[in-house]
Amino acid sequence: MTTLINRQYYLDSRPEGLPTAANVPYRDVPVADPADGDVVLKNLYISLDPAIRGWMGDDPNYIEPIALGDPVRSTVIGRVVKSASPDFAVGDVAQVMGGWETYTTVPAAMCAKLDESAGIPLSLFLGVLGPTGLTAYFGLLEVGRPRPGETVLVSAAAGAVGSIVGQIAKMQGCRVVGMAGSDDKCAWLKNELGFDEVINYRTCGDYQAAIRAACPEGVDVYFDNVGGEILDAALMCLNKYARVAVCGWISTYNVPDAPGPKNLWQLVAESITVQGFVVIDYMDRFEEGIAQLAAWVLAGELQFREEVVDGLDDILPTFLRLFDGSNRGKLVVRIPE
Amino acid sequence: MTTLINRQYYLDSRPEGLPTAANVPYRDVPVADPADGDVVLKNLYISLDPAIRGWMGDDPNYIEPIALGDPVRSTVIGRVVKSASPDFAVGDVAQVMGGWETYTTVPAAMCAKLDESAGIPLSLFLGVLGPTGLTAYFGLLEVGRPRPGETVLVSAAAGAVGSIVGQIAKMQGCRVVGMAGSDDKCAWLKNELGFDEVINYRTCGDYQAAIRAACPEGVDVYFDNVGGEILDAALMCLNKYARVAVCGWISTYNVPDAPGPKNLWQLVAESITVQGFVVIDYMDRFEEGIAQLAAWVLAGELQFREEVVDGLDDILPTFLRLFDGSNRGKLVVRIPE
Repeated sequence: MTTLINRQYYLDSRPEGLPTAANVPYRDVPVADPADGDVVLKNLYISLDPAIRGWMGDDPNYIEPIALGDPVRSTVIGRVVKSASPDFAVGDVAQVMGGWETYTTVPAAMCAKLDESAGIPLSLFLGVLGPTGLTAYFGLLEVGRPRPGETVLVSAAAGAVGSIVGQIAKMQGCRVVGMAGSDDKCAWLKNELGFDEVINYRTCGDYQAAIRAACPEGVDVYFDNVGGEILDAALMCLNKYARVAVCGWISTYNVPDAPGPKNLWQLVAESITVQGFVVIDYMDRFEEGIAQLAAWVLAGELQFREEVVDGLDDILPTFLRLFDGSNRGKLVVRIPE
Repeated sequence: MTTLINRQYYLDSRPEGLPTAANVPYRDVPVADPADGDVVLKNLYISLDPAIRGWMGDDPNYIEPIALGDPVRSTVIGRVVKSASPDFAVGDVAQVMGGWETYTTVPAAMCAKLDESAGIPLSLFLGVLGPTGLTAYFGLLEVGRPRPGETVLVSAAAGAVGSIVGQIAKMQGCRVVGMAGSDDKCAWLKNELGFDEVINYRTCGDYQAAIRAACPEGVDVYFDNVGGEILDAALMCLNKYARVAVCGWISTYNVPDAPGPKNLWQLVAESITVQGFVVIDYMDRFEEGIAQLAAWVLAGELQFREEVVDGLDDILPTFLRLFDGSNRGKLVVRIPE
């Protein structure tokens, strides 16, 4: 019997700033046979998301930090190659919290079985029909709570989450303004996704003036993916009783001791609600969310972009593209079978 | 006919840091006869509240900044001495947004008539039965939304608002922890008002360790009157789905360019809601709130402290006591009739 060799990119030290190859080296280790109840997955797709950067730090977060020595944590989709569970046969495809590695061994009970026969490209279950789409869906509708006619501002609007947020907000009858980091991204948002107005935050100059110009009636919902100076500017443009849905603060993840927002006193001035959330808060409603997202995708009402990058060995530089904005849509690493 | 002379403390320049006598000088001006629909009040009580410091700045707030040259704005209770309104007779007592002055001239339509015959000391309508009590009532119940058994943390807990918040939280079946600035205040909270635990923030050392020790099951509701470092510490002690009711940030009002809270990333880590509010958000429910507060006071279930200081001419140093914590309960200036 062949011994499978698992290449793992693991957390050797916690990064200060952007993670480096020294923080995330690799090792090749043999794959043990699964213990009773476990399965071994050959990973096909590894999801790259900004939240992973948070788990590399040592602050407790909504899930525990990655332990030093453990593979970097990611949602993965893999094919079962060994099974010690009656619930999974070799050849089944499963989605689970795994790692930056070729093989993931996990309890079968943690795995969600995916149905290849439906013909949906598997990677979509990491994106528009997975945590990304669900984050947009629940974050906008349950935390942002937009009402028809309101103005919704989205930062990192061309990102995997932001682009879905904006389209759902349009379907709710809102005026939607997106902020993104290039004219190309802005054109896509406006021309393809139907955003009402766009702001290139790299060229617009004064953020606050740009937001005011794009949102002449003020902002009722700010879906915040970035934090930092854009959050401070957005806070100054919020209407009475506005909601800020805090999905993440990518601008701060690689900045040690990033300062907090200066303009939070606006919360009292305008009776604003700022609410953080993570998608797993809505786990008991995932079925509803996926059904709705799938219906929109099938009806052509919800567009999405994914960027699938082949090969595990470039996973760290690929991950870093999330932080320079060079990715286009949902970023996924594929390990060809 | 005697001409009435009005002593006014007015905003001559916007303070940097604590307001000084140079920022708030006085002048004596004659009182004109009221225009049609107006009344002239001889002020009896002037309410001193931290929010007034905010209105002295030039940032737009939930109400407009005080215009330079205008009297400093305060809620006042006064007796009608001249009336050009059929709704008010000379001798009636009214509450209205007035100023730091002996006479306030306002449209009668802005005034709430108070009934002296009920025997309730008038100053209470500025405190426990007024904006102060209503701020505590709606801020805790509608923004904090405590459930029985939860832990409620209150900063500036011996203050006019905080002391009422804690008592209402106890009535909701919560464990209540208060932070205050002296052993004397802490003893009052624990022995007289029934707080479960108290923290003297001036002597406790590490805020976060002190909050964790006093709240072994974490904090579900943080009623924030102070902002700054105590907010940052409280953020680290919040439970999943905790609520932060932002009433005000007195620690920052006199600090130009106060830094924002550093630990707001906890919002995403624990799915926390931070919500600002002002009491006028609940204006259409004031009647309900006052009725409930009055019932509690009459039943002896809600205690309050007020500190009534005689004389308009010390109003600025009296106001400044809000910021060094030397006041005891709701601070009111009385101008004897």
